[in-house]
Amino acid sequence: MVQYVGVSNVVELVRSVGIDAFLLGLADYIEEDFRRWEQFEKTPRLASHSQMGVIELMPTSDGQHYGFKYVNGHPKNPSAGLQTVTAFGVLSDVSTGYPCLVSEMTLMTGLRTAATSALAAKYLARKNSRTMAIIGLGAQSEFQALAFRALLGIKSLRVYDIDADAVSKFRSNIGDKDFDVLVATTAEEAVAGADIITTVTADKRNATILSDNMVGGGVHINAVGGDCPGKTELQGDILRRADVFVEFPEQTRIEGEIQQMAPDFPVTELWQVMTGAANGRRSDEQITIFDSVGFATEDFSALRYLRDIVQGTAFYTDLDLTTQPEDPRNLYGLFRQPETVLQRSVA
Amino acid sequence: MVQYVGVSNVVELVRSVGIDAFLLGLADYIEEDFRRWEQFEKTPRLASHSQMGVIELMPTSDGQHYGFKYVNGHPKNPSAGLQTVTAFGVLSDVSTGYPCLVSEMTLMTGLRTAATSALAAKYLARKNSRTMAIIGLGAQSEFQALAFRALLGIKSLRVYDIDADAVSKFRSNIGDKDFDVLVATTAEEAVAGADIITTVTADKRNATILSDNMVGGGVHINAVGGDCPGKTELQGDILRRADVFVEFPEQTRIEGEIQQMAPDFPVTELWQVMTGAANGRRSDEQITIFDSVGFATEDFSALRYLRDIVQGTAFYTDLDLTTQPEDPRNLYGLFRQPETVLQRSVA
Repeated sequence: MVQYVGVSNVVELVRSVGIDAFLLGLADYIEEDFRRWEQFEKTPRLASHSQMGVIELMPTSDGQHYGFKYVNGHPKNPSAGLQTVTAFGVLSDVSTGYPCLVSEMTLMTGLRTAATSALAAKYLARKNSRTMAIIGLGAQSEFQALAFRALLGIKSLRVYDIDADAVSKFRSNIGDKDFDVLVATTAEEAVAGADIITTVTADKRNATILSDNMVGGGVHINAVGGDCPGKTELQGDILRRADVFVEFPEQTRIEGEIQQMAPDFPVTELWQVMTGAANGRRSDEQITIFDSVGFATEDFSALRYLRDIVQGTAFYTDLDLTTQPEDPRNLYGLFRQPETVLQRSVA
Repeated sequence: MVQYVGVSNVVELVRSVGIDAFLLGLADYIEEDFRRWEQFEKTPRLASHSQMGVIELMPTSDGQHYGFKYVNGHPKNPSAGLQTVTAFGVLSDVSTGYPCLVSEMTLMTGLRTAATSALAAKYLARKNSRTMAIIGLGAQSEFQALAFRALLGIKSLRVYDIDADAVSKFRSNIGDKDFDVLVATTAEEAVAGADIITTVTADKRNATILSDNMVGGGVHINAVGGDCPGKTELQGDILRRADVFVEFPEQTRIEGEIQQMAPDFPVTELWQVMTGAANGRRSDEQITIFDSVGFATEDFSALRYLRDIVQGTAFYTDLDLTTQPEDPRNLYGLFRQPETVLQRSVA
C-alpha cells in the first residue's frame, strides 16, 4: 500500500499542527537536506512544452529515498478558473523501487517555497531585522509572511500590490495572525525602511519591481517572483551591488534574477552558507539577495517531512497502487483471487 | 478531482469486461497510437540508478494528452517477497496541465506488453499460424498466451520452463481458458513445429534461449525477454537470417536483442508496417522477429484506454490531488475554508 496525502489531508494536517509549527518543522527538513547537498543526485528536470504551457518532472534522490514532483505551468489557466501551477509528488524507497507516498504538492510547494525563503533569510538577513516589505500579494504572499514570522519573528509588514483585490485578499487571510500591516500606495513606500524586501509578483516579463535607488544598504532581498526564463523583478544594478545567493547555480542562471547577468556572474550556493563552507552576511551594510527559483531537493524535503509527520495520524489514506502477489512471478494470479482479497482499499 | 484506478480496480474491470475483450480493446488503442506515431513527442526516459536497481520516468505526449509511467527494476526484490518491477502511470490534459488519471501500471504493463506482441504478430506472423511456443513461464507468460488467443485465435501452445513450479503455475492459471497445452521437456521440443515462438524468460544475462538451428523458415519470433542492456535471448545468427521489427530503434538498439548487432543493423519500425509505409511479412519462408522492449507510447495507449473505459463505471475513485480554490490567487484561502468544503474525497 502507498500512503496518499491529498489536498484536504494537507489542509487538515496543517490546521491540526498549526501553520507556524508546520513551517518550522518543514524548514528543519529543508535545512537538513541543504546541509547534505552533496549526497543528492541532481538530475535536470524533464520538460514537455506545448503552446499552452509546460509539464515538468523534477526527480532527485539522496540514495535512500527517491522523489519527484510533477508540476505544470499554464499562464492562461486562471481565465478558465484553473490555477497556473498545480503539482503533485511521489516519494519512493530506493532499495526496493516501491513508491511509499503520493501527495498533492500545490499547497506543499507554496509552503516549502516560503519555508526556504525564511530559512535563507535566517542566514542572510541582519539579525536585528524587524520589518519586511512584500511586493506582490498573489498566491505565495501569505505563505511568505507566515514563514518569516515563524522563523525570524517578523511581525511588521509593509505590503504593496497594483491590484486592490489582492490587497484585500491578503489582509483578510492574515487578519487573525497578529501582524502589524502597513498597506503602501507605491512599491517605493513599501520598501522604505524595510529590513527585508520580498518581491513575489506574478508579472510575466522582465519587469523592474525594484530599481536600484529603492534599495538601501544592509537590506536582504528575497527575490521569489523571478523564477523562469524571461521573468525577472530586479534591476541588474542591484545585483551588482549585492551578494547573490542561489540554490543550484546551473538552474538559477537560466531561471532566476541572474539570467540578466553574464554566465560567470559570481554567486554563492546557499547550502555552503549553511554548512559554513562559504560566508553569508559579513556586515550590516552589505546587501544580500536570495535569488529563489525552487529546487527539487526542497520538494524532496517536503515529501520526506509529510511522510514522517503523517505516520500514526488520520491525515492519509492507503492506495493500492502497487501489486502484492504472494508469488512475485504469479502476477496473473491476481485476476484469480477471491473477491474478498480484492476489496478496494480506497472505497 | 483526479480519477484513480488501483490494482483492485484493474482486476475488477478486467473481470467485468472479460480479459479477451479487454485485450482486444487495449490492442485497438495501441494500434491507433502506433499509426499516428509521428504525432508523439518521444522523450528519453529519465533513469535514477542505485546499487539495488533503477527507477525510471517514461513520459510522452501526443499534443492532447501527456502521460508518464513510473517504473522500477530491482532484481533482488523477489528474495524479499516483492516484485522486480512495479509501475504506475499518470495521464494529463496538455491544454491545462492538470492530471486527469492516476493508475496502477504493473498489471497494465503486463497487459499492454502482451497486446503489443499479439498486435505485432497480427502483421508479421503467417496468416495460417495455429501453434505458439512459449519459452519462459514467468509473470508475463499468461498475458502473452491470452493476447495471442484473443487477437490471432492461437489455441495450441507448446510451453517450456526450466522451473517445474513455473509450469504448474502457468497450467493452473490458464486451465479454464480452453487451450491445448503441450508441456515440453526441452526448449527444442517446445519450438518444434511452432508457427510462432515467444521467448519470455527472466534470465538476466546474454543467454541463448534460441539457437540458430532451432528456428525453421517461416517462423515469427516474439522476443519479449531481452529488454535491457546485457539481457538477450536469441543467438545473433538468427537475427541475421531474419527481418527484425522494432518499436523505437534508438531504444531497441540499447535494450533489445539487436544490442548484439552493429549500430547500423537493419531494422523496420513496427508503426511503418501498420501504416503500410514499410513491408511486414513478404513470404511464407521469411523469419520475422518482433524485438519487443516496450515503449512509452504503449503505456500512453494503456492509460488512454483505461481513462475511456472506466467512465461511467464504479472502477475508479476520485483523488483530491489538485487544488480548486474559487480564486486561483487565493491558494492560502483553502486553509480558511469551512470543514464541510474540505470533506476528504477519499475516505
